[in-house]
Amino acid sequence: MAYLHRVLYGDTDQMQVVYYASYLRFFEGARNEWIRGHGLAYTEIEAAGVFLPVVEAFVRYHRPARYDDLLEIETDVSTTRVRLRFDYQVRRRGDDAVLTEGHTVHVSVDREGRLVRFPGWLTEKLAAHVRQGMPE
Amino acid sequence: MAYLHRVLYGDTDQMQVVYYASYLRFFEGARNEWIRGHGLAYTEIEAAGVFLPVVEAFVRYHRPARYDDLLEIETDVSTTRVRLRFDYQVRRRGDDAVLTEGHTVHVSVDREGRLVRFPGWLTEKLAAHVRQGMPE
Amino acid sequence: MAYLHRVLYGDTDQMQVVYYASYLRFFEGARNEWIRGHGLAYTEIEAAGVFLPVVEAFVRYHRPARYDDLLEIETDVSTTRVRLRFDYQVRRRGDDAVLTEGHTVHVSVDREGRLVRFPGWLTEKLAAHVRQGMPE
Amino acid sequence: MAYLHRVLYGDTDQMQVVYYASYLRFFEGARNEWIRGHGLAYTEIEAAGVFLPVVEAFVRYHRPARYDDLLEIETDVSTTRVRLRFDYQVRRRGDDAVLTEGHTVHVSVDREGRLVRFPGWLTEKLAAHVRQGMPE
Repeated sequence: MAYLHRVLYGDTDQMQVVYYASYLRFFEGARNEWIRGHGLAYTEIEAAGVFLPVVEAFVRYHRPARYDDLLEIETDVSTTRVRLRFDYQVRRRGDDAVLTEGHTVHVSVDREGRLVRFPGWLTEKLAAHVRQGMPE
Repeated sequence: MAYLHRVLYGDTDQMQVVYYASYLRFFEGARNEWIRGHGLAYTEIEAAGVFLPVVEAFVRYHRPARYDDLLEIETDVSTTRVRLRFDYQVRRRGDDAVLTEGHTVHVSVDREGRLVRFPGWLTEKLAAHVRQGMPE
Repeated sequence: MAYLHRVLYGDTDQMQVVYYASYLRFFEGARNEWIRGHGLAYTEIEAAGVFLPVVEAFVRYHRPARYDDLLEIETDVSTTRVRLRFDYQVRRRGDDAVLTEGHTVHVSVDREGRLVRFPGWLTEKLAAHVRQGMPE
Repeated sequence: MAYLHRVLYGDTDQMQVVYYASYLRFFEGARNEWIRGHGLAYTEIEAAGVFLPVVEAFVRYHRPARYDDLLEIETDVSTTRVRLRFDYQVRRRGDDAVLTEGHTVHVSVDREGRLVRFPGWLTEKLAAHVRQGMPE
């Protein structure tokens, strides 16, 4: 259930590698597909009045990805009562080497932007796929 | 009152020139500054319930712009009763050659997205700076 | 063989619709897939010393696309001796209404950026899929 | 010598705040201006055969920035023999509250991508403006 992305010109920069900010876009795509792949759409979560804004993002760049590479992004999710963390690993399809890895941390807020616990139905739906506790 | 933009890595692509879609971002910046420079902010126009969505965009690419270029974008505006058109010319600062030119056409809609005439106060405010009629 | 793109947060803007410049990225994706789908990769064309820089881009915006829409982009290609034109139509998957349409025009240049005719092998490979002559 | 950026539609997303990846673009602009402000251009460093690819990026999001905000980004730089770190703080101009902060870590490589020490001339030029040692 990895997320695939074919690198476009628009993702690269003049060093002829993927621009460093592009990975946060790829992470968003991977996160979106992970949620959808577990029987939810992010639009449904929002329709229920729950929003998951990012409070922290981190990327470590090991090796460059290049134009036309077919990238495969694997996503792992862990949670505490008030935080959801997605960890991402980016590889070229069919290649073991991790090019880039990173994570994003999200909180749960209501329409007015106040912090709220993750609603029970969401926790239940995700429980089987999510680690309890957060990596250091 | 030209709009200045210093080209970033993030604007370029692996051909080592500015990516073709980046110019539409530069045009947005130039449009925004043109409006502000004539005593309005686009946020004020929106606060008055008038929105100016783009219905058409065009770019002609003559010569490439490159990383670290300081681009200068000149903007001309023309109008009919229901359309507003911005024409843009992109040069390197201090250089006459036009690198890229283009235009965007905007209509005037209300909060529900219905087409409306440009409100009188907006037309008056812009009248001195805008050509009547639209280029072919 | 249409190109599919799931709309991300990063493609949208604060009007809660897809940002106008994002369509040029989608067009690039569609163009890339069209070429690949006809037995070529754009990287191979470049490896042969032929580059296809864009000299003109146009977009007409009919109806907004929104976050999480699954967009389907159809591509048609036409050619003259020195120009290649891609026409694009963007729809929501499973819906007939065209949201956005546009085109890009490309010329053929060598490594030094000089205009060259499309090489014979490229013309032959694409001949069956490309209209001769260019739309008005 | 803070870097200023006026938030565009293209920087925002449908949550009506600045998209999380946009901050890495702003950081690049701030980094570029910081280097230029200390009597160097990044293009000169590259012309000398030294490249400073990013190996790590981090962003913490405290409060949202919005369309048309005039953002002011302050940059601090610290260094060890082989790493250069930029720390960024983003505020609305004239407002003390930090909206977003983050850092990027860069290494020094030659044209072949091999790790090299920062060249002496670069270290000297930057010495007065850079802290020795890296924050935890």
